Parts: sequence; structure tokens; C-alpha cells
Amino acid sequence: MALSKKPYKGTRDFLPDDKRIQDYLFDKMHKAAQLFGYEHYDGPLLEEVELYKAKSGEELINDQIYSFKDRGDRFVAIRPEMTPTVARMVAKIHKEVAKPIRWYSIPNLLRYERPQRGRLREHWQFNCDVFGGPGRLGEAEIIQLIIFFLESFGANEDHFEVLVNDRTIVDTIFAEISPDEKTTYKLYKLVDKSKKIPKEALERELNELTLKDNGSELFQEYLNLTSFDDLKNLLTKIGKSEVAEDFHQFVTETIPQDKLIYLQYDPTIVRGLDYYTGIVFEVFDKHPDNRRAICGGGAYANLLQIFNESPLGGVGFGLGDVTLQDFLTSHNLLPDLSKPNNDLLITFQTEQGLKDLSQLANELRKKGIKTVTNLEELKFKKVFALADKKGASFVTLYGDDEKAKGEVSLKNLKTKEQENFKISDSEAIFTFLNQ
Amino acid sequence: MALSKKPYKGTRDFLPDDKRIQDYLFDKMHKAAQLFGYEHYDGPLLEEVELYKAKSGEELINDQIYSFKDRGDRFVAIRPEMTPTVARMVAKIHKEVAKPIRWYSIPNLLRYERPQRGRLREHWQFNCDVFGGPGRLGEAEIIQLIIFFLESFGANEDHFEVLVNDRTIVDTIFAEISPDEKTTYKLYKLVDKSKKIPKEALERELNELTLKDNGSELFQEYLNLTSFDDLKNLLTKIGKSEVAEDFHQFVTETIPQDKLIYLQYDPTIVRGLDYYTGIVFEVFDKHPDNRRAICGGGAYANLLQIFNESPLGGVGFGLGDVTLQDFLTSHNLLPDLSKPNNDLLITFQTEQGLKDLSQLANELRKKGIKTVTNLEELKFKKVFALADKKGASFVTLYGDDEKAKGEVSLKNLKTKEQENFKISDSEAIFTFLNQ
Repeated sequence: MALSKKPYKGTRDFLPDDKRIQDYLFDKMHKAAQLFGYEHYDGPLLEEVELYKAKSGEELINDQIYSFKDRGDRFVAIRPEMTPTVARMVAKIHKEVAKPIRWYSIPNLLRYERPQRGRLREHWQFNCDVFGGPGRLGEAEIIQLIIFFLESFGANEDHFEVLVNDRTIVDTIFAEISPDEKTTYKLYKLVDKSKKIPKEALERELNELTLKDNGSELFQEYLNLTSFDDLKNLLTKIGKSEVAEDFHQFVTETIPQDKLIYLQYDPTIVRGLDYYTGIVFEVFDKHPDNRRAICGGGAYANLLQIFNESPLGGVGFGLGDVTLQDFLTSHNLLPDLSKPNNDLLITFQTEQGLKDLSQLANELRKKGIKTVTNLEELKFKKVFALADKKGASFVTLYGDDEKAKGEVSLKNLKTKEQENFKISDSEAIFTFLNQ
Repeated sequence: MALSKKPYKGTRDFLPDDKRIQDYLFDKMHKAAQLFGYEHYDGPLLEEVELYKAKSGEELINDQIYSFKDRGDRFVAIRPEMTPTVARMVAKIHKEVAKPIRWYSIPNLLRYERPQRGRLREHWQFNCDVFGGPGRLGEAEIIQLIIFFLESFGANEDHFEVLVNDRTIVDTIFAEISPDEKTTYKLYKLVDKSKKIPKEALERELNELTLKDNGSELFQEYLNLTSFDDLKNLLTKIGKSEVAEDFHQFVTETIPQDKLIYLQYDPTIVRGLDYYTGIVFEVFDKHPDNRRAICGGGAYANLLQIFNESPLGGVGFGLGDVTLQDFLTSHNLLPDLSKPNNDLLITFQTEQGLKDLSQLANELRKKGIKTVTNLEELKFKKVFALADKKGASFVTLYGDDEKAKGEVSLKNLKTKEQENFKISDSEAIFTFLNQ
């Protein structure tokens, strides 16, 4: 029986036409992170399962992780996310390095998912984190970095918004609603799924909880908030105007005016229960066919707790390549990447022509000219179709006449300009190619 | 108990100082491949184990592979090499695309190894292949590509050599030595390990085989070959001068003269038993402390057999990042990569200075200036040490005087030139940064 040619379920083959798109995305990730001074890091593909258990709890381990015992009886997992790894790495070095620490990575990750739009088993995730930044300036920078990154594709406020909340604010409000920690936890769960379940189901679940007086009304009022001003009013009403002031100031004064247009207060954004402690956010696609989060993140106070290290706070985000590509495709923001990008196609129209031209090819490559050679004699009438397929800007033509003179003909495919050069004169040819 | 901060056995944490080196290696890989017109591809992290069994046989599966059953009862493995994946991908598309197909990739791979110098469980491998190239021109190109790649680090013939053999030649000679296929197979095994075992052990094993008349002498003669000319003489002696001629011509005429100095005939290079059918080669480090292969490859005729597809030949190589880094370190060929690479460090010496400068920072980033901001007020005397640590070429200084005038001071750290600009004049600042 012949083997299957399909990739493993939920993973992708990146043929060059696909890889070119992914490399375009990766290139923008590297550029945005580096333009903000973030340093690239990476970690192992496998970690001990203990690490994930400590950070994410049993649920992720049981349902979503690829785990197995290695031959040395270590219980390991293929990384489903980068945060535990980066926490482990920062724990090793945080005492010796100056703060803030700004790191980014683009790892391949594996989760046991039922494949669906925007969700695959293997994906790549752009992770940026600032550790140990003062006050809320790290938070502000991270949000600016995401916006900068998405703008670098030509996206603007018509295409995406940044939905923001703050866990300390939610804690403050829930303290007025809930009599105990257990109920607060349930309220968080309810908020987290409030957009996904019908209003009636939400109310039913709410009614099952024992809340403080007027707690139910306050909870509803909270869920109906739609702006930073609304939020300020509510907090003032419950006597917590200083919390409101702090958050309001952060949003309106630390984020530059021209980026503020992207920010939208959203009370339903809480993002997981155990990890984040400060600001939380999701970048949301505004396209009606693709209303989903492209990216999420937030601030955390106790990254290193599981390593018994002193507290170190940070803020970060993760953005997957699949959702990013869906977003860009929805809004038609991807350029035409259907062809490779070569500078020069070497063709010859005489026997064994390559032998005469291979030295030239290598010299041009040394000067940075992407030079692809056709290995066989190529009829003149086929040259231009092949050059087009190879995405080349120039071609060489080398027939019996040129050979007799020790020359080669170079043609600029845009301007149609054509000129003959001595084969040995790679300098002059280089100049022609750079006009 | 606190969690371990160590990476999983045989894997590496890439802190930014380490990642910078790996990225430097990767960048050279991308450049060399692209300068030769090779297109980037990638495949899944997991493949079904069947695929590896079909290509590599049981040994690799049993001893070296990370394999497990997924929740859908599929028997899968983390990729230990890229060839089966690329074969699967080429099998899907080879009928529709023009030949030759030139592909490269830099995947992370996992093998169950006992960690030692040059061998880790996780490594990255630079893979380049040409499929369907005419005659031996693909082979010649692949060898030139490796040489070009290593030369791009400043390596030359003092640092490495390319040991070459040809499986069709070995087959031809062994047909004179061995009476049957089984014995030929054993001869191959013997050649493969001939450099690693003592002469006596080799002779003992050889004596256990039943060979044709004079087979033992011919085998010894074969093993003692040290040059292409020697080889030609031996082949002529056994009446196979046409085979000699073909190979000699390939080596001396298809490889440009200035690359020929790297090539060395080596009868012990056979590289695995089932896969390669034509030329085989290893790039060898010449450093006395690091006498080992940096890279190996060869030509194969039946890549797609396991998919029941028509024969498609190719030639390729794989080069690991660990052995490459060892090679470059041995010869002191790595540049100083101990610092990050930023253009501008933004510092301020007045309260909340960042607020005034963050718009400027973003405008400079849009113009491609790598701009890292210090989030807190920084004393003047600490500015230059921090700029040095950040690898910045320029700094801003922004104190009360500058603030009063709406200006910011820029200093070129190389020339010591310093100039004041209106904060709003990002154009003039950009020009100053690009002098």
C-alpha cells in the first residue's frame, strides 16, 4: 500500500508558495519586535509536564497537551505555549540582568485541538513580553507594539480594535458583589463566557449564586459598560474613584493620542483565571465574517512563583500565525506573494553554456544578487515565461554568437533594455543589475 | 518543591545572547540558499511513524525516534529528519511543477541521542535539495552551494574539505570483489566503519567474508585510494575506464576551478546503505581538535518510491546548527555577537519625559530606526553605560532645559557629535541618525 501524502491531522505542509506568506508574517514580527528593542529568544520543543501543570493547571494537561514518557521515564510534553518556558528561562537570569527585560519569540507550538477555522494543532505564535517594567509603562509599550505590528501590514482602526480591561478593577467591583472567593471565581467564569451564551442562560446561572445586596444589579451594570467613562462613573458610584482615576490616566495619558482610537473598554475580557493580575486585552478583528480575537495578553505579577523566586511582574501577548493570516486575508491586506523573488535567471542557448557562466553566477551571488541558473539549454522563446515563473528581474542570454565573443547578454525584463558584457566583467554586470 | 530551571535533557535554552548567534547562522543559511534560487519550505512537527519506517528502516524507529500514540490512536513521531517530509511533499506536486525543484528548510528536529559534543537531542538542520536536475549538474550545484555557504563565514580550504565518493563507482568495484548481494552489503558496512575500527578488526571481518579471487586485495587497494587520479587508475585496471571517465569529468569540469581545491576523493564515504545511489559527500572540519563531518549528503534516484510515484532523482545535504557552531568556534570564525543591535536609546532626565518622546519614538520606528526606550528617568552619568549594554549607536538626552524649549538632544556615540532638535522634527532627527 502506498503511504499517505497528507500531512498529519491539524498540521500544515508549507510548500514554497505557502511558506512565502508565512515568512512575510514572520519578517514583520521580527521587524516590529526589534524596532521596539525586543530581543529574540527560543526554548526547547519539549518541557517536563510538571512545568505546565504548575502554570496552567490540570485541565490543559489532560485535554490539550501532547505528552508522553521518554525512554528515561521522564514525563514530557511538546510545548503548547511559550509562557512556562520563558518563565523558566527568566527565573534563571532575572537576578543578574537589568530591568526591564524585553524578549520575543516565534515558536512552533502543538495543541490537541479539533481542527477548525483559525485553530490548528500546530501553529506558530508571536510572543512579546516585558518583565520588570516600572508602573504601567510596560503595559503601554506592549499595546503600542501590537498596534505598530498590525499597522505595518496596512491595518487601521477600520480593521481591528484593542479591547481592554483591568483585573484589579474587576476585583474591586466584584468585591462589592460577591461575599466570598468561591463566588468571585464563579463570577469570573460567568464573565468569561458571557458573550458566548444566551442572556437567559447567563441570568439563570447568576441567580444560582448568592450575592451581596444589589449584587445582581451591579453585576448587570458592570456587564453593560461600554466605555472608559462609563467605567469611571460606576467606580465613582461605589466609592472607588481612585481606582478609576489610575486606570483612566493610564489609558488616556500613557497611550499616544493617535493610538487611543484603537482602544475600547470591554468588561467581558478577563482572560483566564489564575495568571493575569493587571491589565488584560484582546485584539479583535472588526470584519463581520471574522469577529474573533487575533491576539490576547495581559499583565501578571507572579511569573516566577512556581520557581520559588522573588516576585517579578510582566506584561505580554501571544499572537498566532493562523489567526493573523485569516485577519489579513479577510481585509485583503496581504500583498501578492505568488511568485518567488529572484534577481537574475541565467539561461544559455548553446551546448554546455553553464560551464562558461557558473563562475560569473558565483561572483554575482557574492555581491548579493539572487541568481538562479537554468541547468539545461533553454530555447530563446521559452526564456521569458521561465523568468516570469522564477520572479526574476533580469535574464542572461548566451548563444553561439556570444560564446564566440566571450560575451553574455543581459536583459532587464522591466525596461526591456539589453546589453552585452564580457563574461569576465562581473563588475559591469553588477552595475547593470543595480540600475 | 520548586520546579527545575534546567531545560529538558539534550535541549538548549536560547537566551538572547545565544539566540543572536543562532540567528546569525540561520541568516547565512537563508542568504546562501536564496542567492542560489532555492525556495523555503517547511512541514509539520509530527509525521506518522509509517513514513519514517518506509524511508529509514526499523533501526532508526526503534532507537532514535520520539514516537507515541496520539488520542486518535495514530502512531506519530516528532520529526527526526526532514527527508521523509520533503519526499511526501514533493510526491504531492512533482507532476505539476517545472524541474528542477530547488527547496531548502531549517527545521527543528528531535532525536533520542545520548548528548555529547556536537550531538544534542534537539537541533536545527539546514536542508537543501534539487529534485529532477539534468545529469550531474544538480550535484555540482549543491556542492558549490555548501562551499559558498561556508565561505560566507570566511572559511576557506584551510578550514574544511569536501570528501566525495560515488555509489555507482563503489558498486562497480564491489561487483569485482563480491560474489553476491549479501556480501556486497557487508562490504558497504565494513567501508562505512573502516575509519572507526582498528586495522586488525577490519582485516578479521574481511577474512570472514567469501570473496571472488583477489577480492581481498582489490578491497584493500580500494580502501587505500586517496585521489581522483588513483581511482581512475584502479577503474582502468579492472576494465571500467568509462565509469572513471564520467566521474572524473564531473568533478574536474563541472565544479569551477576555484572550488575544486576543496574536493578530496575518499573511498570510505558511503553514507547509509539504502538511500543514496549516486554521488555521496561529507564536509569535514580540518581542525585537529574537531575532525568530524559538519555536513553530509548525496544523490538518490528513487525518492518517491514509497509513495508509488514515478522515479524522481535528486541530490541534497543536511547541516546541523550544533556542528556548524562547533566548526566556526574551532576556527574563530564567529564575529562578536555579545551585544544586541539597536540604533537609538531613548533616555530622559526629567519627570515623565517618556510621554513627550513616545510619539517621536514611534515615528522613528516607522522609518526603520531600532528604538529602545528607557522607561524611567535616567541620570546623565548612567546613560552611556546603558547605551553600550543595549548596543545603541545614538542616545537621546532630555532634561528640564530641553523640555522647556520643546527640544531633544541627540548624541552620536561614535563621533561624539551632539545636536538639539525640535521634538516634532522627526525628519531632521532621522537624517542625523543616518549620517
